[in-house]
Amino acid sequence: MKILLPDTMELDPALPEGWEAVVVDAREPIPAEHHDAEVLVVWGSSRRHLESAARDLGSLRLVQSLAAGVDGILAAGFADDVVIATGAGLHSRTVSEHALALLLTLVRRLPEARIAQEHHEWSRELGGLQPLHPEGRLTTLLDARVLIWGFGEIGQTLALILAALGAHVRGVARSAGERSGFEVIAADDVMSALPGTDVLVDILPASPETAGAVGREVLDALPDHAILVNVGRGATVDQDALLDALEDGRLGAAGIDVTDPEPLPADDPLWGAPRLLITPHGAGGRPVGADERIARNVRSLTLGEEILHTTAR
Amino acid sequence: MKILLPDTMELDPALPEGWEAVVVDAREPIPAEHHDAEVLVVWGSSRRHLESAARDLGSLRLVQSLAAGVDGILAAGFADDVVIATGAGLHSRTVSEHALALLLTLVRRLPEARIAQEHHEWSRELGGLQPLHPEGRLTTLLDARVLIWGFGEIGQTLALILAALGAHVRGVARSAGERSGFEVIAADDVMSALPGTDVLVDILPASPETAGAVGREVLDALPDHAILVNVGRGATVDQDALLDALEDGRLGAAGIDVTDPEPLPADDPLWGAPRLLITPHGAGGRPVGADERIARNVRSLTLGEEILHTTAR
Ligand SMILES: NC(=O)c1ccc[n+]([C@@H]2O[C@H](COP(=O)([O-])OP(=O)(O)OC[C@H]3O[C@@H](n4cnc5c(N)ncnc54)[C@H](OP(=O)(O)O)[C@@H]3O)[C@@H](O)[C@H]2O)c1
Ligand SMILES: NC(=O)c1ccc[n+]([C@@H]2O[C@H](COP(=O)([O-])OP(=O)(O)OC[C@H]3O[C@@H](n4cnc5c(N)ncnc54)[C@H](OP(=O)(O)O)[C@@H]3O)[C@@H](O)[C@H]2O)c1
Repeated sequence: MKILLPDTMELDPALPEGWEAVVVDAREPIPAEHHDAEVLVVWGSSRRHLESAARDLGSLRLVQSLAAGVDGILAAGFADDVVIATGAGLHSRTVSEHALALLLTLVRRLPEARIAQEHHEWSRELGGLQPLHPEGRLTTLLDARVLIWGFGEIGQTLALILAALGAHVRGVARSAGERSGFEVIAADDVMSALPGTDVLVDILPASPETAGAVGREVLDALPDHAILVNVGRGATVDQDALLDALEDGRLGAAGIDVTDPEPLPADDPLWGAPRLLITPHGAGGRPVGADERIARNVRSLTLGEEILHTTAR
Repeated sequence: MKILLPDTMELDPALPEGWEAVVVDAREPIPAEHHDAEVLVVWGSSRRHLESAARDLGSLRLVQSLAAGVDGILAAGFADDVVIATGAGLHSRTVSEHALALLLTLVRRLPEARIAQEHHEWSRELGGLQPLHPEGRLTTLLDARVLIWGFGEIGQTLALILAALGAHVRGVARSAGERSGFEVIAADDVMSALPGTDVLVDILPASPETAGAVGREVLDALPDHAILVNVGRGATVDQDALLDALEDGRLGAAGIDVTDPEPLPADDPLWGAPRLLITPHGAGGRPVGADERIARNVRSLTLGEEILHTTAR
């Protein structure tokens, strides 16, 4: 039995007896001698690679993605009996770390410190004795009220760290309830939670429902000192509304790892928005535990057991 | 019985029956009508204020500092029977948060992202698919080997958060052992731990023993990709050696909240060092839980019980 691994990252899964792993060029169609593969691992794979796989791999049983989103795979037209498994969870550690980095940088005003440093200036405003909770400004996560919109694998990982730092964390998901010990609000009720939110973290996937979710109405409902972080998808934020809120002083600061489109065009006014930090989709991009996930799902496939994180189609 | 509170921050301790709290100007000598005070709370107090207290408060029994360091109080010449209590622990949350902010900003290369943003440039180098542990560069705290030099209240608070982020944390203190579940190395053995260190966090107090502790030898022993964070005291780092290491590419990056002297003079070459982030002593500066500490120690004084965090003299 054969499994095709992409050449876009180093992989070495501990496969069950009888499996042969072959590394293939993830940008190119699949060579004829590997059309007998039963499992395809996908990471940074091109459209023609996926289309070749869907068309040419007659014995294919499982497509194991290492990415959280599988839109590209779904679009490639795999036969209905091919199981598609997402890389859910493989990006929780890295993406939550990046969200925390963006948030802490803004809370601790490191961009402002950098500017003072360029002027060789020891800013009295950024140091020395200070109130713990100054009026109209968020300067610590201690006691900060955080709302995480998109409270799945990444959101819950982040929530635990923020809680350890003393923040009060709530989540927003499609349905209300409690997850990992945190209160979760239904998306339909999000507006009422915004006035009591100091930090809004967007970790939403792209979908018709989430497009422009963080729009004018949402930004207006947040307090003026609030900080927005987006590590989900660019399309979930109305970028015109974000620019206006920052320019008008109706939002404390924002840190975004994702934009719409990507790359953000050089002439987009968002680049120059005040108190905005942009990183070029660098939060994740490096699955953690990929070998273990592949090994586990190949074993499950072999034994007829449950495959983790399959996608309903 | 009277307790003098400084006017440098808002305080409202729940005092035991019979105690009167009076707010005094912490920059000025103590007015004659308050020379009967038995407790003095110190926060941002001037030298003349402390000297007046040492000289004029004939009934003084306890000096309660809200700062971690009490060098200024010790220098003021209080009588031997006056108990001096430090504000140990009141800065653990805020200072560890700042250390984490400096560290994550450097690990996640946010200063570089900021520069790319100024050029309206979507940097392929800072985003997209990437190895989890690229050769010669630290880009995540996951699996990072962190050494915290000065492993007291702040250090152990930071260690717990870093461990939750997936780092391997060890401490350095005066004596070896285990604290809060972390391995602690004796200061005498620190050199041997440095080659296996990706992140060195300096949280040392200023003392004759710690002066210049992070010097040429230490910086040389760290890997070239290592990151240094200093939230302890400026004098614990040899700043000439730090500048050289950064300029020569023998240190990955550094983030320092403290310098020697403070403020750092405008013509100091450190301001312009590459891959260095300076914040103007803003990590702490806002005791957390001051009211509770004051109330607790005044109660202990009243009842003849143990006073928290007294200083040996
Ligand atoms: N920046 C990066 O480098 C990077 C890397 C990886 C992933 N991401 C992004 O992060 C997203 C989340 O990843 P994950 O692993 O945490 O996914 P996940 O476990 O599937 O969680 C997604 C969360 O979003 C919620 N959600 C979906 N649609 C919603 C809606 N219309 N209204 C409210 N909540 C909604 C889900 O709610 P329910 O639980 O109620 O279904 C769930 O809580 C990915 O989809 C991707 O866009 C970014
Ligand atoms: N940047 C800021 O805004 C800010 C704010 C507050 C405090 N600070 C600094 O942070 C320092 C630490 O605060 P803390 O509350 O964590 O103090 P702490 O609880 O007293 O801890 C100090 C630690 O340093 C260790 N240490 C002292 N001398 C040493 C030496 N010669 N070699 C090795 N280790 C030594 C101690 O070791 P032992 O445990 O073995 O004695 C202890 O682990 C303060 O002294 C202050 O300088 C900075």
